[in-house]
Amino acid sequence: MKNRARVSNAVIKRLPKYRRYLEDLKEKGVDRISSGEFSKLIGYTASQIRQDLNNFGGFGQQGYGYNVESLHRQIGIILGIDRDYGIVIVGSGNLGQAIANYMRNYGAGFSVLAMFDVKPELVGRRVSGLVISDFGELGAYLAKNPADIGVITTGTESAQSAADELVAGGVNGLWNFAPADLLVPGRVALENVHLSDSLHSLIYYINRSLDSK
Amino acid sequence: MKNRARVSNAVIKRLPKYRRYLEDLKEKGVDRISSGEFSKLIGYTASQIRQDLNNFGGFGQQGYGYNVESLHRQIGIILGIDRDYGIVIVGSGNLGQAIANYMRNYGAGFSVLAMFDVKPELVGRRVSGLVISDFGELGAYLAKNPADIGVITTGTESAQSAADELVAGGVNGLWNFAPADLLVPGRVALENVHLSDSLHSLIYYINRSLDSK
Repeated sequence: MKNRARVSNAVIKRLPKYRRYLEDLKEKGVDRISSGEFSKLIGYTASQIRQDLNNFGGFGQQGYGYNVESLHRQIGIILGIDRDYGIVIVGSGNLGQAIANYMRNYGAGFSVLAMFDVKPELVGRRVSGLVISDFGELGAYLAKNPADIGVITTGTESAQSAADELVAGGVNGLWNFAPADLLVPGRVALENVHLSDSLHSLIYYINRSLDSK
Repeated sequence: MKNRARVSNAVIKRLPKYRRYLEDLKEKGVDRISSGEFSKLIGYTASQIRQDLNNFGGFGQQGYGYNVESLHRQIGIILGIDRDYGIVIVGSGNLGQAIANYMRNYGAGFSVLAMFDVKPELVGRRVSGLVISDFGELGAYLAKNPADIGVITTGTESAQSAADELVAGGVNGLWNFAPADLLVPGRVALENVHLSDSLHSLIYYINRSLDSK
């Protein structure tokens, strides 16, 4: 069932959205959904949905549709969010603090183990039940307390050195919020949240909409 | 030059990345770059780059490549970031405050006009030179002070009502960070930053990498 090999990035980008919609349906008490209804809801064609889920063996049954609870659980297993992940955050300004709170409120699956910053005025401050440590202590910390994920919420200039230190400390993935394209070894997963790209796309759509008025 | 019609979403999503790399090159003092070099740097094929930029008339010259400064400026004009945008932020917790700081440090083009929240303990607090107002005052505020963009950094439950109020107040675009798929009229641009989708993709890649060990 856990077949993660050779699935295209486009499919992987859609899986979390499937799961998010299924979670919604679950919370609303919906037991099953036809691929047609699911298609209308999520905005992908029914054939796209079938194709996407067939990458992992397919889950629908002819004339029945999808079992919401089961599909939700299966996608969680495929994604790997059925186990726990330890997180360290490098960059403990507002964004780092926001991510720490976000993870704390996320529910099961993620624990923020430690937070780091270079700024003396932040080091020692308490956030979400953690005390911010000096960035210089990151290497020693990870040697004793292995973490799965490093979150980078530093400025652009510090992002690569934060990444290098996290990679040297053995993290398996980086969640990068700094506007920098990081260089990491192939064994380390990297997911970027490029806020400025998203903002610029928004600006484009605003102007296209204004153009047509 | 400002031809925003009928360009595919995939191209629009790539434009900010082109601009980001060109900004980097500009800062490094690079005057021009061949489509081959640009391709290696940014990770798209040279033919993809040519095709993308041809949507807007094309900018390269045979045997010369791209003029970095000019292409950077042109893409900025296409995106529409050559003018100023007024922003209001709804949801003034850590994430809202992080976005306010982010926008303040962004440089030209964006001004955060006001911040709102429903929580009494946040209302009245000073952030990035602004005083957080009560969400109940948003409508009256926008009637007097039109804004271009509404940023939604509320919780899931409040996101749609924040969106409704912002749309009623005349904003042209919403930058949504709440894990909700919002309903907005077609005239309003909507850009979502789904943090959990990004996190789940990261988890998937981490596990795929671990699987192969």
